[in-house]
Amino acid sequence: MSKDERLVRQITPKSEDFSRWYAEIVQKAELADYTPMKGMMVIRPYGYAIWENIQRLMDRRIKDTGHVNAYFPLFIPESFLKKEAEHVEGFSPEVAWVTMGGKEELEERLAVRPTSEAIIGYMYSKWIKSWRDLPILYNQWANIVRWEKVTRPFLRTTEFLWQEGHTCHETAEEAQEETLKILALYKEFCETELAIPVVAGRKTLREKFAGAQMTYAIEALMSDGKALQMGTSHNLGQHFSKAFDIKFEDRNQTLQYVWQTSWGATTRMIGAVIMAHGDDSGLRLPPRVAPVQAVLVPIAFGNWKETVLPAVLAAAESLKKAGVRVQVDAREEFTPGWKFAEHEMRGVPLRIEIGPRDVKSGQAILVRRDAKTKEAVSLDSLAEKAAALLDDIQASLFKAALQYREENTREAGTYGELKDLIETKRGFVKGPWCGGEVCEDKIKAETMATIRVIPPDCEGPAARGKTCVCCGREAKALAYFARAY
Amino acid sequence: MSKDERLVRQITPKSEDFSRWYAEIVQKAELADYTPMKGMMVIRPYGYAIWENIQRLMDRRIKDTGHVNAYFPLFIPESFLKKEAEHVEGFSPEVAWVTMGGKEELEERLAVRPTSEAIIGYMYSKWIKSWRDLPILYNQWANIVRWEKVTRPFLRTTEFLWQEGHTCHETAEEAQEETLKILALYKEFCETELAIPVVAGRKTLREKFAGAQMTYAIEALMSDGKALQMGTSHNLGQHFSKAFDIKFEDRNQTLQYVWQTSWGATTRMIGAVIMAHGDDSGLRLPPRVAPVQAVLVPIAFGNWKETVLPAVLAAAESLKKAGVRVQVDAREEFTPGWKFAEHEMRGVPLRIEIGPRDVKSGQAILVRRDAKTKEAVSLDSLAEKAAALLDDIQASLFKAALQYREENTREAGTYGELKDLIETKRGFVKGPWCGGEVCEDKIKAETMATIRVIPPDCEGPAARGKTCVCCGREAKALAYFARAY
Repeated sequence: MSKDERLVRQITPKSEDFSRWYAEIVQKAELADYTPMKGMMVIRPYGYAIWENIQRLMDRRIKDTGHVNAYFPLFIPESFLKKEAEHVEGFSPEVAWVTMGGKEELEERLAVRPTSEAIIGYMYSKWIKSWRDLPILYNQWANIVRWEKVTRPFLRTTEFLWQEGHTCHETAEEAQEETLKILALYKEFCETELAIPVVAGRKTLREKFAGAQMTYAIEALMSDGKALQMGTSHNLGQHFSKAFDIKFEDRNQTLQYVWQTSWGATTRMIGAVIMAHGDDSGLRLPPRVAPVQAVLVPIAFGNWKETVLPAVLAAAESLKKAGVRVQVDAREEFTPGWKFAEHEMRGVPLRIEIGPRDVKSGQAILVRRDAKTKEAVSLDSLAEKAAALLDDIQASLFKAALQYREENTREAGTYGELKDLIETKRGFVKGPWCGGEVCEDKIKAETMATIRVIPPDCEGPAARGKTCVCCGREAKALAYFARAY
Repeated sequence: MSKDERLVRQITPKSEDFSRWYAEIVQKAELADYTPMKGMMVIRPYGYAIWENIQRLMDRRIKDTGHVNAYFPLFIPESFLKKEAEHVEGFSPEVAWVTMGGKEELEERLAVRPTSEAIIGYMYSKWIKSWRDLPILYNQWANIVRWEKVTRPFLRTTEFLWQEGHTCHETAEEAQEETLKILALYKEFCETELAIPVVAGRKTLREKFAGAQMTYAIEALMSDGKALQMGTSHNLGQHFSKAFDIKFEDRNQTLQYVWQTSWGATTRMIGAVIMAHGDDSGLRLPPRVAPVQAVLVPIAFGNWKETVLPAVLAAAESLKKAGVRVQVDAREEFTPGWKFAEHEMRGVPLRIEIGPRDVKSGQAILVRRDAKTKEAVSLDSLAEKAAALLDDIQASLFKAALQYREENTREAGTYGELKDLIETKRGFVKGPWCGGEVCEDKIKAETMATIRVIPPDCEGPAARGKTCVCCGREAKALAYFARAY
C-alpha cells in the first residue's frame, strides 16, 4: 500500500461497519469533532460551509414564500413550558436548565430552548390584536439544546442548529395549507439541493410533536437501509393559542384564537448527505451544497511553477467567473496522489488535473467524484464543461439515491413478511395498518421498526380491502415502516 | 394635531429625554421588544433584517480577509473557564449556569458561553500540531449570554448576537498584525456601511478584555454626546495558549505556544445606528443596511387602482432591477399622511410618492428621509436617480455624524477643564494622561468619564511636554475621555 493510498484505506469500508464508517468520515473529512461535553460537537469549517450553503438555499425559499426572520430568546421560563400540557411532558426530560445567574440562584428555572413555541406564543399574544395582523409568518435560525442520551454527530446531538418557522393564521384551513406548503418546500429542497429523495406525509399520533395537532414529515432512506427524518411541519391547531391566549378580533368583530403551525429542519441534514451519498472512499457531496465544487491539482514536474501553475490559476479564474466554487491545491508538501485521495475523501464533486503535457496540448483532465470517470477537456471549454458536469453529478446522485430507495421499498401483506423484510432487508416496508397504537407499539417492540410516515396516497382508499399486518383487522392506511435514526 | 401626525408626535423628542426617545423608537419601529425575562429581548423582523444586512456585509469582509466560519458549543465546562485566571475573574460574575440536564444534576456546571476563548482554546490544542497548521483564522456567528444588571435593548442585553473571531499564529508579530487588521476592518465597516465615524485605538489595561494582553477598540459618539464601543479586537498573546496548552512544532522543530487574537462585534451596532442617526421623527437608517431602501406610496384618489397603482408597480419593478430594496405600501386602511409618518419613523431612507397628477406628467415625488427634501423626478430616470440619492443619503449621514463628532471632540489641558467639558458638553475630551490607573480611577469616580480609546497618533510623542490632567506628572499619551454606554 503506497503512502498516498493510506489515507483512504484508513476509512473502514461502509459495508463492513456503517457506524464506524460514518464516524470516521465525520472526523477525517473534518466536518465535525467531539468535545469533552457528551453529545456536544464542534462543526468544523468544512462542515459549517455545507451548513452555510444549506442555510442560504433554504432561507431563500423561506423568504420567497413570504416569511420573515426574527430572533427570540434562548431561554424560556419553566412556567411557560408548562402551559401546554403535552408540550412540557414531551420536552421536560430533555431540557438543560439554567438555575443560576452569576452568583444568584434564580427564582424560576430557565429552560435552554428545546424548541421555541412557548416563548414565541407568549410574544404573539402581546402582538396580535386583529385579523389585520394575520397571517404572521416568522422564521428563526437558532441553536437548540436537548439533553439526549445517545448521540452521534449531526444526527442526534445535545446542541444543534436549525431553522424554526412559527406562523399564525385566521382559519384552520389556512394553517393546514401552510403546514403542507412547508412540507412540500422541504421535500423540494432535499431533492433539488441535497439530491436526496424523500417520502412526505403525516406521522402517527404516537410520533407527532409534543403539542401539535398533527405532524407531517419528510423521510429519507440512508444507504444502510435505515430511515432518517429530515424535516417536520406541524399543524398546531389552537393548542398553543389557547395555552398562551393568542386571540384576535376576526372580520366579524368576534374574538378568536389563532390557528398555528411550526416547522423545522436542522444540521441533521448534513448527516443525511453523508449517509445517503457516501461510499468507501468517503464523502460524495452534491455540488449544490459542496463548499468546494471543483479542486484544481497541478501535476508538479520540473519547472511546473512556470509552466503548469499559470495555466491552473487561469483555469481557476475562468471557473470562478462561471460561478463555480473552486479551490487550487498547489501545496508542495503533498504528492498529487495524496491530494487525489484527500479530495475524494472530502467529497469534492469534480477534480481537475493539469500537468505539463496537458498544458502543451491545451487540455485538462476532469475526474468525477461520483462515478470516478475521467475525461480530457480543452482548456477553452473548461468552465462550460465543468458547470455541465456539476449539474450532471447533482442529477446522478439524486438518481442513484432514488433507485436505491425504490429498490429498498417493499410491501408486506403479513406480519411474518414485515418482520422478515425489516430483519433481512431493512429499507422501507409498506404495510397495511389498522390505525391502532397497540399494533404500532407491538411492531416497534418486536421489530424495532416504527411507522415513519403515511403519504396522502396511502390513506384510506389505498388500503381498502386490506387487513392490518399486525392484528388482521381492517386497514385504515398503508404505512411506511422502517428502523430509523 | 391631525390623526396622521399623532403617530410621530407620540415619540418623545430626542432633546427632551434621549433615553425615552431611544426606548420608544425601538418599540414603535418594531425593532425589538421586551420579554418577561430581565434583559432578554426579542429582535423583531424589522430589527432582524438590519442584522441580516450587517451580517452579510461583515461576513463578506471576514471571508475576504481569509477567515472561515465554524461553530463551537454553547456550553463551556466550568473547569475550562477557570484555566485562564483573569478570564474567569472577569466573566464568572456574568455567567448563566446550567446545573441540570433533564432530571439529573450535572457533575460539573456548564457556563452558557459569555465568550468562547475557553472552549475554542481546548479544541485548538487538539487540532494544532505543526507550523503547517497555522495560521488558524476562524470566525463564528453565535448567541452570547452575560448576566447583566442594567440592560437596554441592543446596547446591553442578557443575550445578544455577535461574531467572534479566534485566530492562532506562529509569531507575536503576526498576531499583532491580525489584531490591527481586524480593527481596521471594523472601522471601515462602521464608516462605510453604518455611516458612523469611529475612533480606533487601544484600550487601557483597566478596560481590556479579561485574559487579553492588549485590547483595541473602535469608539463612536452617539448624538447625546455619550460614547459607544462598537467592536473590540484583542491581542491575546500566549495567555490562552499557555492555559490550554496550544503548542506547535515550529520551523526549527521546536515546540512553541501559538500567539492568538480574538475579536467581536455585536447586535449593539443596531443600537449605534439608532443613536447616531435618529431624529425627533424617529429612525434614519443608512441605506446600506436599511431593510427597505425606498418605499413607494400610491396617492389614492378616484380610480387610483387603475391609474396610479400600475405606475407604482412598474416603478417598483424598475427599482428592484436596479438593486434597490423596495416596498410598495398600497394598504387601503391608512391615509398617505399616516404612511408618510410611519415610514419616516421607521427610517426608510427614500419615500416615493406617485399620485394621479404625477402619472399624467410621468413623474414621481422623491422625499429624502435624512433632509426631508422633496424633488420631482421623471419616471424614466427614477431607478437611476433613486440609486444616486441613496448613495448621497449614505454619504450625508456619515458627513453629519462626522461633523457632530468633530464639533464634540474637545481638548482639556487641566482637570478643571476636563471636568467642566464632560459635565456641560459631553462628547469626547482629549486630555494628556500619565498612564497611571490611580488617575484613571479617580477621573472615572469623579466625572463618570472613562478612557475610551488611545489612537496610535495620540501615544507618547503626541503628549510630549504635556502633563497629566489629573496628577500633573509627565503625560504618556493623549486619551479620549467620555461618558459611555
